[in-house]
Amino acid sequence: MDKIRLTRRFTFEAAHALAHYDGACRHVHGHSYKLEVTVLGQPLQEEQHPKNGMVLDFGDLKKLVTTHVLEKFDHALVLLQDSAPALIEVLQHQGHKLLLTPWQPTCEHMLLYIKEQLLPHLPQNVSLHSLKLWETENAYGEWHAADNL
Amino acid sequence: MDKIRLTRRFTFEAAHALAHYDGACRHVHGHSYKLEVTVLGQPLQEEQHPKNGMVLDFGDLKKLVTTHVLEKFDHALVLLQDSAPALIEVLQHQGHKLLLTPWQPTCEHMLLYIKEQLLPHLPQNVSLHSLKLWETENAYGEWHAADNL
Amino acid sequence: MDKIRLTRRFTFEAAHALAHYDGACRHVHGHSYKLEVTVLGQPLQEEQHPKNGMVLDFGDLKKLVTTHVLEKFDHALVLLQDSAPALIEVLQHQGHKLLLTPWQPTCEHMLLYIKEQLLPHLPQNVSLHSLKLWETENAYGEWHAADNL
Repeated sequence: MDKIRLTRRFTFEAAHALAHYDGACRHVHGHSYKLEVTVLGQPLQEEQHPKNGMVLDFGDLKKLVTTHVLEKFDHALVLLQDSAPALIEVLQHQGHKLLLTPWQPTCEHMLLYIKEQLLPHLPQNVSLHSLKLWETENAYGEWHAADNL
Repeated sequence: MDKIRLTRRFTFEAAHALAHYDGACRHVHGHSYKLEVTVLGQPLQEEQHPKNGMVLDFGDLKKLVTTHVLEKFDHALVLLQDSAPALIEVLQHQGHKLLLTPWQPTCEHMLLYIKEQLLPHLPQNVSLHSLKLWETENAYGEWHAADNL
Repeated sequence: MDKIRLTRRFTFEAAHALAHYDGACRHVHGHSYKLEVTVLGQPLQEEQHPKNGMVLDFGDLKKLVTTHVLEKFDHALVLLQDSAPALIEVLQHQGHKLLLTPWQPTCEHMLLYIKEQLLPHLPQNVSLHSLKLWETENAYGEWHAADNL
């Protein structure tokens, strides 16, 4: 049975700032991020099984990404920890949702973090093929397993 | 001469139902499927030839996919044969367009079927690189030759 | 550190004609071309550096493609040199922007030309992964380094 790639697309609204950046992205700003998560596997061949013919139920992929990725990022402000202590303190005091990271929150680093969040939770019969993250409609990054064997 | 991938995108309207599925997809429902067919080859280098500089004429790729794929699926109901004999009999009696398959009509299995329909009809100078099939705007599957060497 | 692919998407308006073609594309006509340029590399890990966490600044990728590709193609008419001397003479006389090429201006050949324009100008820490060029919303070509090792 041939292998098939399955992809589910998501949107989340997040803010970030790039510490030490030499341009407008130094300021706190936000994006309507689009995220595509692609898994690879063989469709199940069990005639009476509810998931017959599926690599993974699109609904299960959605739940997995919602729990392990979207709930962390959606409507959050992602900041390099220690980059702006006064700002972070005020926002925390006001109850804003923050994701403080040991890495600069570029599109590239967010992809690597998302990969780490998802890998331990994928079912055994699929592998993580790739991730695609749009910062804007015209700019996106991708992590591919095949680039990192 | 470098190899180039060429892709044509299509839409078709089809219904399906997933027998034994444990959710809403058990019911007859439809999608505006999007399909991308990608071939790989070298652009022709013959100065006076009408197809000079082309891997394949986009128009020829369109005709090929229309004849061998879209005409089967467009405005059809795709059902696992034997899954609902009474329903199938009534629909056939009323002249509906049915595609009865020995496989569960998931996105995954439709991709494998589309691959089988296209492979015998591609010109010799190109190979089928991949197929991409959207069930919805946010959920799609892909078959890639490179995943199945 | 994992490798990441970065893509920037562009639009340009250009006209072309395909000499000797056996269809409507023989006539001068235009497209709103979309172009995606994808580079591959490792995100920079230097905490105080303005580009920390980036493979390449999306803004730098934009400048590079604008200078070396868009400025040649945007609002230009691309014609096979010697294909229509009388037409070319009149258009030149009237000050139109022409790109006269030794190759038939198909989507395939434009990709190869764009590759040649970009390769000498990419920073050393990234490689050109792929190019994707849409002639219309439903028809596009791609050049991939991996297809041409």
